[in-house]
Amino acid sequence: MAAAARLFRGATRGPPALALARALGSAPPGPAGRGVRGAALAAAGALGGLGLALGLWRRQVALAAAREDEEDQELRQRFMAPPVSGLRELRRRRRELRSRMELLIMETQAEMCRALAALDPGASFVVDSWERKEGGGGISCVLQDGEVFEKAGVNVSVVSGLLSEEAAWQMRSRGKSLKGKDGKLPFCAMGVSSVIHPKNPHVPTMHFNYRYFEIEEADGTKQWWFGGGTDLTPTYLNEEDAVHFHKTLKEACDKHDLKLYPKFKKWCDDYFYIKHRGERRGIGGIFFDDMDSPSKEEVFQFVKSCAKAVVPCYIPIVKKHCHDSFTPEEKLWQQLRRGRYVEFNLIYDRGTKFGLLTPGSRIESILMSLPLTARWEYMHNPPESSKEAEILEVLRNPKDWVH
Amino acid sequence: MAAAARLFRGATRGPPALALARALGSAPPGPAGRGVRGAALAAAGALGGLGLALGLWRRQVALAAAREDEEDQELRQRFMAPPVSGLRELRRRRRELRSRMELLIMETQAEMCRALAALDPGASFVVDSWERKEGGGGISCVLQDGEVFEKAGVNVSVVSGLLSEEAAWQMRSRGKSLKGKDGKLPFCAMGVSSVIHPKNPHVPTMHFNYRYFEIEEADGTKQWWFGGGTDLTPTYLNEEDAVHFHKTLKEACDKHDLKLYPKFKKWCDDYFYIKHRGERRGIGGIFFDDMDSPSKEEVFQFVKSCAKAVVPCYIPIVKKHCHDSFTPEEKLWQQLRRGRYVEFNLIYDRGTKFGLLTPGSRIESILMSLPLTARWEYMHNPPESSKEAEILEVLRNPKDWVH
Repeated sequence: MAAAARLFRGATRGPPALALARALGSAPPGPAGRGVRGAALAAAGALGGLGLALGLWRRQVALAAAREDEEDQELRQRFMAPPVSGLRELRRRRRELRSRMELLIMETQAEMCRALAALDPGASFVVDSWERKEGGGGISCVLQDGEVFEKAGVNVSVVSGLLSEEAAWQMRSRGKSLKGKDGKLPFCAMGVSSVIHPKNPHVPTMHFNYRYFEIEEADGTKQWWFGGGTDLTPTYLNEEDAVHFHKTLKEACDKHDLKLYPKFKKWCDDYFYIKHRGERRGIGGIFFDDMDSPSKEEVFQFVKSCAKAVVPCYIPIVKKHCHDSFTPEEKLWQQLRRGRYVEFNLIYDRGTKFGLLTPGSRIESILMSLPLTARWEYMHNPPESSKEAEILEVLRNPKDWVH
Repeated sequence: MAAAARLFRGATRGPPALALARALGSAPPGPAGRGVRGAALAAAGALGGLGLALGLWRRQVALAAAREDEEDQELRQRFMAPPVSGLRELRRRRRELRSRMELLIMETQAEMCRALAALDPGASFVVDSWERKEGGGGISCVLQDGEVFEKAGVNVSVVSGLLSEEAAWQMRSRGKSLKGKDGKLPFCAMGVSSVIHPKNPHVPTMHFNYRYFEIEEADGTKQWWFGGGTDLTPTYLNEEDAVHFHKTLKEACDKHDLKLYPKFKKWCDDYFYIKHRGERRGIGGIFFDDMDSPSKEEVFQFVKSCAKAVVPCYIPIVKKHCHDSFTPEEKLWQQLRRGRYVEFNLIYDRGTKFGLLTPGSRIESILMSLPLTARWEYMHNPPESSKEAEILEVLRNPKDWVH
């Protein structure tokens, strides 16, 4: 966090997300928070002498433009790549939620990548900006075969275009049917999504995803909703880590509504269920979808709290265990668990399925969630009372980690 | 084949499958081919003196029973495990197609397992007989982590029970709707299914499956059909092997109808398509489903020819390459191709999907098709004109290997 704040060298103060929002003029006005072009024009209008006014106005515009350029440069340095919608466009529609969400996902991507890179100094992220010919694009950041991480991917995507009614129906998990013009619905979908597979079997795999959708119906009604979640998949159970992870997520939820954590913790256990194995993919976390109340602003603030909890819920666990020693047997068990991860992602995960079926989607970014290596042994059953049986028990019967 | 014939030590002569059918009385009567109990009774009826007749009859019955016991014992030794339906039951309904098909799949399993085991003498097959509580069961034979084979599985399953109309609809690929009594349809499904993943990247992976279905509708109509196929998935292209493989399959098909091979070769290329990659899983072979004409007997004979072609189309390729030297880079490319195999099987394969969704199915036997190890690298693209690019080209644009 300190490093991230240091990198953002603007005149604005406060936590980086707010600073970022202020820099683009989307936060409530503060000392340095007013839209700079607006301020320049207001100043110019208040002056009587035309020549003086014009001179001052020109100076103000030039100053404003210079400040914008400086801010853009700072954002460019701060983010992993220029945002899909472009800084200018984001500035133009800075009060719209989709702009604020795009900044939040860019910020989350940058925070996570820097936190991971700091732990694996020998490796580096490959950053790919890609375009989707049907509209929009994304930024994929992948670190592969490092010292600490086997594969770590943090993706941002911001896509838009027209959806068929059927695809729109599939997109919304509770299956609300939407009416489009000639069967087509303009949509905008964006999100940050990440899967981290560490090398050491004592460091758990982690996944998070925060996303926002807008769909416009034929009568002009705009449907919007948020979805997301953060969850942990350990190879071996460490209760202290499980409690830390869940506690951090619970604190993020509790700031908004005490009902959220219990509801979304259960949703997570239900969602990441590998039915044919009778096991969850991991020890859970939070998961939610179709969230569109109490209000757009309140849900956004909740999603922001969750996104801000990603680094603190996971990075301390990596730091704690990334130098733990391990045996070849422990590595083998990790590889078998990786196999289960692949089973869940390819058979059940709605995001993966939807992605693979969507024309123009970027396959490499979707399948970045798969581990570098995985293993399937016929009839592998760990002995009773082993450490392997211990984690299986928790995957079969989810526990409450915090109350 | 010689070893197999040697193992079958009965009085009957001819190729093993015929011998087997004769032993159970399901083949046209030959010198030693009549049902033995029937012969004993006929002999007894022709005699006048009751005492003599009775004595002779008793002796014949005892002889017949002894011969049946001997034949059963021979079959028990020959097969990998006792058949799911039991030898006595198969004998009782020996003229029914489902009995003859069950013998064929048992025979195919045994032939394949022996051929594989002969090439990997240090390893051995684990044989599991399992029951399905809803009806039927199966025999799974798996060789894992051998010298030559990374994972080789040959499964037989013979299951029966009641299907929902929806499941019946899904089962039949052309989506013919079937009417059940109270929405339920009695069914019987059996098949032999195998996936062989060798260690050496110069030995291709091979898959085959031959299956038979019967469903009874509410009005008593019996629907039946066969399905199956044999296909090859090389890590590197070897044209000679590709031609041998396809030629052997074509010869098996051509014995029945010259139209079959071209039709089923194309069906195979279309079926094993990894849509999101724009690649086929392998270099094809044959694939067919819903085959119910010209007649049950003729389709069975065709399926039998295909099943008999399994060993000769594949085993010579294994023998030829299993001692080829290979580099770590070649092994890595094999692992990446294994990843694609997993993608096809978990996302697209109808058999796997149907199996995982069927209550009471044996997950370990279904997922035996997955390789021991697999790998996914982000954005792996082999250089132009490399051996890796050569196989990709064929997977993207299937070739005709025989004309």
